[in-house]
Amino acid sequence: MLNLKWSDSEKKLARQVYDKALKSELANILAEFKSKAAAASNVSEMWALEDYLIDRRREIDSKYDYRYSQLLFVFARLIREGRIDEDALSGLLPEKRAVIRRALEY
Amino acid sequence: MLNLKWSDSEKKLARQVYDKALKSELANILAEFKSKAAAASNVSEMWALEDYLIDRRREIDSKYDYRYSQLLFVFARLIREGRIDEDALSGLLPEKRAVIRRALEY
Repeated sequence: MLNLKWSDSEKKLARQVYDKALKSELANILAEFKSKAAAASNVSEMWALEDYLIDRRREIDSKYDYRYSQLLFVFARLIREGRIDEDALSGLLPEKRAVIRRALEY
Repeated sequence: MLNLKWSDSEKKLARQVYDKALKSELANILAEFKSKAAAASNVSEMWALEDYLIDRRREIDSKYDYRYSQLLFVFARLIREGRIDEDALSGLLPEKRAVIRRALEY
């Protein structure tokens, strides 16, 4: 459990990076969903999209956790997935960037 | 609880009428779903389609009950909803058609 202090400017930066990644990932899911729905040609492909939506929603809910105790690990995961660039977080203090870098080593 | 005897020809007719109604209703749902998915322009409209699919699947599961003890009531409901024509069941014995007609009065 991390308990680092976040300055106002760090909070603002974190919020921007987080929101941008979430918005982008949701836009990707929406596009993929619409494409799958358009391609569905039978009922079982339609019901499969129910599971698709449930899985995506749960994945988003578990991945995007804005608690400050979790945020650096969330960022590490988003960097690993190529959703954000590590440089976007260069405005964070070195101790926070070090936590992200250590998390990326696993 | 009805416990009427079903002849082979009645069973065959019932199965045909039932399968046709189910197939037609599922085709309607698929078309409606594809249209809603194509129209979804944001993430909340997409998540709403998860509920839409869950509701439709539950509705189908509860409505289409092929147990012979339930089948005449299923047919009455499908007639009421305009999904099948009462004449399609004219090959059933009069006692069964009477049950359907009584069910239609409620």
